[in-house]
Amino acid sequence: MADIFFEDFIEGDVKTYGSYTVSAEEIVAFAREFDAQPMHVDEAAGKASLLGGLAASGWHACCITQRLMCEGFLLRAAGLGSPGVSEVKWRKPIHPGDVLSLRRTVVESRTSKSKPDMGLVTLKLELLKQMGEVATEQVIVILFARRNPGARLA
Amino acid sequence: MADIFFEDFIEGDVKTYGSYTVSAEEIVAFAREFDAQPMHVDEAAGKASLLGGLAASGWHACCITQRLMCEGFLLRAAGLGSPGVSEVKWRKPIHPGDVLSLRRTVVESRTSKSKPDMGLVTLKLELLKQMGEVATEQVIVILFARRNPGARLA
Repeated sequence: MADIFFEDFIEGDVKTYGSYTVSAEEIVAFAREFDAQPMHVDEAAGKASLLGGLAASGWHACCITQRLMCEGFLLRAAGLGSPGVSEVKWRKPIHPGDVLSLRRTVVESRTSKSKPDMGLVTLKLELLKQMGEVATEQVIVILFARRNPGARLA
Repeated sequence: MADIFFEDFIEGDVKTYGSYTVSAEEIVAFAREFDAQPMHVDEAAGKASLLGGLAASGWHACCITQRLMCEGFLLRAAGLGSPGVSEVKWRKPIHPGDVLSLRRTVVESRTSKSKPDMGLVTLKLELLKQMGEVATEQVIVILFARRNPGARLA
């Protein structure tokens, strides 16, 4: 059962989650299925590219971010889905052996008069490399159920 | 070898590509790896959710969009990578059996004085369902090599 609700997301709160080591095999397998550009499937092509070596598809990075969010808190939360992401920035390439973690910052938390049983939470999600560099950054909105939907908002 | 370059993206041009049928097995397999929220892995939980049935993760939709773009033109193009996506909107759920296609619109095309051998192309990518409904929408920027980098810009 969910034990994290809308009310648990406090504006300004920052937390870091998880650890995920990326392999060359995984980078290539993902890319062959969804994004088979040369720099994502071939080491030599990666070296010759702006990415400087075999590098994960940017969409793979987004998927790893989502996985770390699921493991970190989303699968224990009363999440109802997401209308979208306001921006995704692919800042640094992710190479084989990189160890990734997720930093999430609560940017905004708001309820809706029309949907009093849920609230919208805006999160900045940064996928960090082992030395703390930001590999990718996104701002996502997620709907969460309220713990106590009948309560009057302050 | 690439036969599509920066110069081939004309502002306002709209093209539609491909056909991709989504299965329940694929929706669940993707979600188990990256986004195991109940509505993406379980039919009953999907029915009880805002998505109205087992539905693909929004990130799965982005990955299918990228695959259709690769098959449609990107793997034949002199693509150099992408700095990011300015917005992703998940508008309609994708259910098992949906047949998806990609509509891409060239929003902007611009060269850079500092990097005269490449140009930036902004594309609106819409993932369409079989009846033409827009399931997801995103605006992505992609770097492409110029066909004739030595030429002086008009």
